[in-house]
Amino acid sequence: MIPPSHPRAESLRIRAMLERGFAGGIVSAEGLMAHGRGEAFDYMIGERTRAPALRAVRAAACALRRSEKIAVSVNGNTAALCAVAVADLASAAGADIEVNTFYGPPARRARIAEFLRRNGARRVFGAGRRRHRIPGLEGPRGAADSAVHGADTVVVALEDGGRAEALGRAGKTVIAIDLNPFSRTARRASITIVDNVVRALPLLARHAAGGARGGRFDNQACLREMARIVRRGA
Amino acid sequence: MIPPSHPRAESLRIRAMLERGFAGGIVSAEGLMAHGRGEAFDYMIGERTRAPALRAVRAAACALRRSEKIAVSVNGNTAALCAVAVADLASAAGADIEVNTFYGPPARRARIAEFLRRNGARRVFGAGRRRHRIPGLEGPRGAADSAVHGADTVVVALEDGGRAEALGRAGKTVIAIDLNPFSRTARRASITIVDNVVRALPLLARHAAGGARGGRFDNQACLREMARIVRRGA
Repeated sequence: MIPPSHPRAESLRIRAMLERGFAGGIVSAEGLMAHGRGEAFDYMIGERTRAPALRAVRAAACALRRSEKIAVSVNGNTAALCAVAVADLASAAGADIEVNTFYGPPARRARIAEFLRRNGARRVFGAGRRRHRIPGLEGPRGAADSAVHGADTVVVALEDGGRAEALGRAGKTVIAIDLNPFSRTARRASITIVDNVVRALPLLARHAAGGARGGRFDNQACLREMARIVRRGA
Repeated sequence: MIPPSHPRAESLRIRAMLERGFAGGIVSAEGLMAHGRGEAFDYMIGERTRAPALRAVRAAACALRRSEKIAVSVNGNTAALCAVAVADLASAAGADIEVNTFYGPPARRARIAEFLRRNGARRVFGAGRRRHRIPGLEGPRGAADSAVHGADTVVVALEDGGRAEALGRAGKTVIAIDLNPFSRTARRASITIVDNVVRALPLLARHAAGGARGGRFDNQACLREMARIVRRGA
């Protein structure tokens, strides 16, 4: 038990969720290391949703409303930490859910899908054989199910950079959630929310459910602001 | 196999070493996440030993030469990544080695000790029952073996902040290797080497073996410089 008065209680609670996910075969060893990287960046931005990230959330909600067919791509970490928010976002945006992992056996995808469904998710794909390919991407990263294949907009949380880039090249609007503003995913996405998934996904679900309005959005300017916050804390 | 031409080859090679350590029961799940945090900070400092860190290495080598009895405290990550450098440093400085872990069963400490010995380490303690306590530190973090108990100087690589602080309060010179210049370990140590253990430990072993000379060293100034490098990249 982590006492709620512990100064790092929230961070320790999240780590404990990931360790449970790891023990349950949902999270990979690579996912645990990736979480640590995210933690460091979250620490640098003050562990809260900063103004440029909120602008990106609003722009993302608008983009979702303009989209015909949406896929939310989910890996083990996102499922372990945000299953309910993933279900809420998919429901609010009318999106399909793709389970996408590179590490571990295909059975891990099936466990993630089952975990998402237990947390309220419908229309979860990717647990079985994936019949589609993302053009220009070799190996397991290039595999896709019908949810992503047919989508015009893909929400990728904690995505591999090469895959995020290839989805963009395939003409899709890519909405990324990534704590590292310097990552390839962050730089290649159409809209990048530089924030922790545990804050950003529920926020995006709420904005997608409400009537999101937004003006012009410049993703590169937003990334520059977030990079400045990481670098200087302001 | 990771191709040597991969832009992140070194980082992937290190991750693979940790995953092997994890599979072999040397590295904990918590250790994998901690490694990710370190990776992010290493990325921010340019993945090389920066000038203030080199100054800290020189000051640490001098402090080791002035010490009567030295312990090098090693956890699962440090053993998995730097077993040979740990053995070299202990041999060069005439130090004992303490295996120190908080997570997992005591058998993990025994596996770490065995792994260190297979890589050339002598005088490895902490694998059995630990009979000493660090004053003012409850729970498993407060346990210590005779190596640390009798030492006037302790080298801690990737240490818990509370333990590093308590070792200092107990009157010991604490030499810390930690990539996060904002961590409690970094701030509380006598000499803080803000660098990756895979670079810093071999470097410290070489300086401890050579005739290290050094003038005045201001650890807080050194930390401020490293914090600036993390924040601004320069």
